[in-house]
Amino acid sequence: MHVRHISAALAVAISLLTLPAAADTPKATPTAKELIAKSKPQEWRTPDPENLLYMQLPQGRVVIELAPDFTPLHAANIRTLVREHYFDGLAIIRVQDNFVTQWGDPNDDDNGDKSKIKSLGTAKSKLPPEYTRTVDSKLPWTPLPDGDVYAPQAGFTEGFPAARDPATGREWLTHCYGMVGVARDIAPDSGSGNSLYAVIGQAPRGLDRNLAIAGRVIEGMQYLSAFPRGTGPLGFYTQAAQRTPIVSVRVAADLPPSEREKLQVLRTDSATFAAIVEAKRNRRDAFYTLPAGKIDVCNIDIPVRTEPAASAQH
Amino acid sequence: MHVRHISAALAVAISLLTLPAAADTPKATPTAKELIAKSKPQEWRTPDPENLLYMQLPQGRVVIELAPDFTPLHAANIRTLVREHYFDGLAIIRVQDNFVTQWGDPNDDDNGDKSKIKSLGTAKSKLPPEYTRTVDSKLPWTPLPDGDVYAPQAGFTEGFPAARDPATGREWLTHCYGMVGVARDIAPDSGSGNSLYAVIGQAPRGLDRNLAIAGRVIEGMQYLSAFPRGTGPLGFYTQAAQRTPIVSVRVAADLPPSEREKLQVLRTDSATFAAIVEAKRNRRDAFYTLPAGKIDVCNIDIPVRTEPAASAQH
Repeated sequence: MHVRHISAALAVAISLLTLPAAADTPKATPTAKELIAKSKPQEWRTPDPENLLYMQLPQGRVVIELAPDFTPLHAANIRTLVREHYFDGLAIIRVQDNFVTQWGDPNDDDNGDKSKIKSLGTAKSKLPPEYTRTVDSKLPWTPLPDGDVYAPQAGFTEGFPAARDPATGREWLTHCYGMVGVARDIAPDSGSGNSLYAVIGQAPRGLDRNLAIAGRVIEGMQYLSAFPRGTGPLGFYTQAAQRTPIVSVRVAADLPPSEREKLQVLRTDSATFAAIVEAKRNRRDAFYTLPAGKIDVCNIDIPVRTEPAASAQH
Repeated sequence: MHVRHISAALAVAISLLTLPAAADTPKATPTAKELIAKSKPQEWRTPDPENLLYMQLPQGRVVIELAPDFTPLHAANIRTLVREHYFDGLAIIRVQDNFVTQWGDPNDDDNGDKSKIKSLGTAKSKLPPEYTRTVDSKLPWTPLPDGDVYAPQAGFTEGFPAARDPATGREWLTHCYGMVGVARDIAPDSGSGNSLYAVIGQAPRGLDRNLAIAGRVIEGMQYLSAFPRGTGPLGFYTQAAQRTPIVSVRVAADLPPSEREKLQVLRTDSATFAAIVEAKRNRRDAFYTLPAGKIDVCNIDIPVRTEPAASAQH
């Protein structure tokens, strides 16, 4: 048995890191890589650098795209915290397996030193919930026909996985892998964005509509997901030495253009995105003989790439 | 803001590692911990030690429960491999973020040294697929009423998440977090159990019915999920030094009883399990004001505990 072959075959069906389909399966479903190679430049969007956070960890950089159309007050407050360097020197404080990695101020905890809690500066210490919002018919909405266990409708809007309830006219971002939420206290308005979490396991959709989602990790999830799990209750680290420090967090717009990453996100209302979703929903090739026929909103990876050099776009 | 409070509140809703509900929420949904504390001894089963694998890693022990009622030939072949110490000295060869951690023989790969491939001994090198099986009405089946994106029916049987299709009369184990599958080559009968993978991200349900599931990790997932992600294609490690060695794998039955772990798994057809599922489906407390009302089969943790001392059972 060749493990290498196993992996290639798995890739054909389920990964963006795919290898070409085997030559002996001419009618195989195209891979995401193949579909992306044929995409048009206008199918990609370059996120507004005002909405991109660069979180520098010792292991590497994590890039988060904020979702101000869903959580505008949180996006503004997080930018304020970042611009006043609130996060610099704070840490990864919690990693609960199959759930979340959370970061913030280790002293803002029962085990912390209250006298050392870092000031929020000019940022607000609490904000209106922003858990859901009224459906905005002006924004793109790409529904999935596959059904959803947790919501009447699921789909994508502006590059984020989301759900809708026509009965209430509300929509909300969904807690899929890599989504970044706002930790809070009991009171619904007690979140400020000074402690955030990223989903690192099976989508905890029960959190939907109960917490604000600030955005999505578009680069560097492999760092946030691989920290040793905390051994304290709920995955909190119990000793300072276990915590990974946050070197810095910056808003991309505050860096000179030459220091910004040239990231592009595939438009979720593009033909190529639709083709990628369909290819994953009904993958059929030498390896996969029984296509699923359905796909869950949280099983769809939204492609991110570095902008190709100009010559490559022709 | 007190992060400690945030975590306690989150715990109430979504974790087995829960803290008691706040005293000011007398009608709060009971936590899993509270429900487990009231469970009866007969609601727990002690897995057959013939079906338990102890995989010793430098970080700690991983315990896998085989599922011989679904994949009997694979269970038998894996036991043969284990008993001939096939896995001892092999390694974690692949960690692909939001997908799987895979282990096996690093030399059984395009980058490996073919001359050093480890013999399978008396184990078979290929097996019939065992991806699905005929519904066995004699085995317990606990369906979920919540619906499922990928299958006509989802639920639990004998402690494993599973799905059914009444139209075909087939049932199969589902690729939820922590499930252990059998890597294979292109040919459906090319899996032997000599390379296995555990799901470490959003359930890749598209794999259901296309790969054999050998069992489930019931202890030690926090080790398998936290390895550095491989940087080669599909998450394979590219250098030997990146691979974590497997110290040994043993069948629990082959160890003296005094060296076995006294693990118990909550019966998935028990009243306490049903209560835990319902509490997670419709969690309502001071923190969660909007219960999900639904739950996905892969969002339900099947409780595992160390058998209480005899005195604690009265």
